[in-house]
Amino acid sequence: MSQLRKDPIVGRWTIIATERARRPAAFVDPLSTTTDQKHCPYCQDIASPGVYESQGVKVINSSSPILDESKPFELRGHGLYDVCHSYGVHEIVLETPTHTANMADLPPEQINAVMQTYALRMQTHRKNPFVEYILAYKNYGVAAGSRNIGHARSQIMTVPVLPMRVLDKISGSKKYFDYHERCLFCDMVTQELKSMERVVTQNEDFVVITPFASRFPFETWILPKGHHCDFVEGIKGHEDSLAAIMKDLLLRFKMGLNDPAYNYMIQTSPVKKASSYKDDYHWHIEVMPRLTRVAGFERGTGFYICPIPPEMSASFLREVEIHA
Amino acid sequence: MSQLRKDPIVGRWTIIATERARRPAAFVDPLSTTTDQKHCPYCQDIASPGVYESQGVKVINSSSPILDESKPFELRGHGLYDVCHSYGVHEIVLETPTHTANMADLPPEQINAVMQTYALRMQTHRKNPFVEYILAYKNYGVAAGSRNIGHARSQIMTVPVLPMRVLDKISGSKKYFDYHERCLFCDMVTQELKSMERVVTQNEDFVVITPFASRFPFETWILPKGHHCDFVEGIKGHEDSLAAIMKDLLLRFKMGLNDPAYNYMIQTSPVKKASSYKDDYHWHIEVMPRLTRVAGFERGTGFYICPIPPEMSASFLREVEIHA
Repeated sequence: MSQLRKDPIVGRWTIIATERARRPAAFVDPLSTTTDQKHCPYCQDIASPGVYESQGVKVINSSSPILDESKPFELRGHGLYDVCHSYGVHEIVLETPTHTANMADLPPEQINAVMQTYALRMQTHRKNPFVEYILAYKNYGVAAGSRNIGHARSQIMTVPVLPMRVLDKISGSKKYFDYHERCLFCDMVTQELKSMERVVTQNEDFVVITPFASRFPFETWILPKGHHCDFVEGIKGHEDSLAAIMKDLLLRFKMGLNDPAYNYMIQTSPVKKASSYKDDYHWHIEVMPRLTRVAGFERGTGFYICPIPPEMSASFLREVEIHA
Repeated sequence: MSQLRKDPIVGRWTIIATERARRPAAFVDPLSTTTDQKHCPYCQDIASPGVYESQGVKVINSSSPILDESKPFELRGHGLYDVCHSYGVHEIVLETPTHTANMADLPPEQINAVMQTYALRMQTHRKNPFVEYILAYKNYGVAAGSRNIGHARSQIMTVPVLPMRVLDKISGSKKYFDYHERCLFCDMVTQELKSMERVVTQNEDFVVITPFASRFPFETWILPKGHHCDFVEGIKGHEDSLAAIMKDLLLRFKMGLNDPAYNYMIQTSPVKKASSYKDDYHWHIEVMPRLTRVAGFERGTGFYICPIPPEMSASFLREVEIHA
């Protein structure tokens, strides 16, 4: 069974795949596959029963899960190390019954249905007392970590521990709140809308910015204008405008940057203590194209070099003419 | 002038390049160049004066520096953000006068000279009161972030802030020390040498392991068996065995993994407070091939999926037959 292992120095968790481990030689020249409709495994999956289905969106369990919910979560020591079996669920969200690769090309109603699916699955998984965090994210394209390309999909993982960067974000925004008694993200939205130099696009409920200390070229964040710590509650009533701004942004990537690989991650408050983050955390979505492999030492230091100012990225994306 | 910008949420610093900013279109299809000896800019640089030179190793200032030491370090606000000009030096270490690409192919004496050069440059840069941390690292190959391939070289950067991951490592090992009154890394060396399942290779002074919670396939750490927080002092008297184990490891990568791209980062204690880390921090080198681009959401969460158990990586690397 796969394991969750904790780095004893910095406290970072890693899922160590065992069952689906690839043989060492497989890393030397990793293959990726673009599937046509006839051979698409997801076009076949969409026809068989899943764990949830609505409006053309279907959720299935991963066929090669790296998480397993069948045994209860139990942390144990291994000398000075911490380890447990990789408790959790790993679901694939098939975003459309048609063989469309990029979410950018889906109609807004379909993107809306995907976002609602994330919220509904999160609501279900929250009931599990072992679940500390629910990750909903997308890898589009080889450079973004996808190995089979051709059918729009995203992933949901429930984990029994708090991912390190989520914890960092929460403590950082709490520190700001404790000092200012205001939400850091709300202040950021105000400042960005005033200066406009890092704003890519906006609608009544959301603004897309390139963050001030961007790590990567064209890194963007979708920030809700209204305050809410939690994705599930926060999107209520704003589903249409979230879908619209997501499509708008992904089309800018596609048209302006030649259909790049990209990732997005829903950043929401942890499950158990959602109420404690009510005032100081603010849900958002990080969306970033994968265009560069710059400065590998970033992996070891967390110190980034962004080869283009975010103001230039924002201005470039603002000027992209989008048409579906 | 380029800037250092701080993410207000997690406190991570990014260097935002401005002068050497690439135009947005340049990211769509980034080019990398393999240079033959005749056109190698580094073979030309090696003949002109540098900032330091010894035993065939030459240090030059980067021709497109992203750091600048000419103005004093001064942090200022920008609304709720923190920013300063990108204070520091950015040096290129040309590791050999010959046009050899991979450090794995250099004689051990030459690798020894490179390591001694890092130590000497660190000693010099430490005298600058604005310098908080000195990064010495290598990007080998396109996947590791190098854009001009062909001449072995590495980089030294001095920065006026503590990189986030360095801070995390230091606080983590301090916590362990405060509780156990023992160095976490020393305990790790003991445990790894006892179990041997994650040991790749060792000599009298160093052991190479694949870390228990490895983030990447074939991630390795070179750990000194003796305790020292600081690279500069710590390598004294162990230069030969460091060079030998580095060559041994890099040859295993080259032979076993088909000359992969890789990075290494010297992890040493911060400059100013080196004495406070005397007991609880332990210098080491992270060395990792860049074989996969898995799970892009790691960027946003710090939650990793390693598709091969480190025990399997270690056993594979152990069995590689190395010959120069």
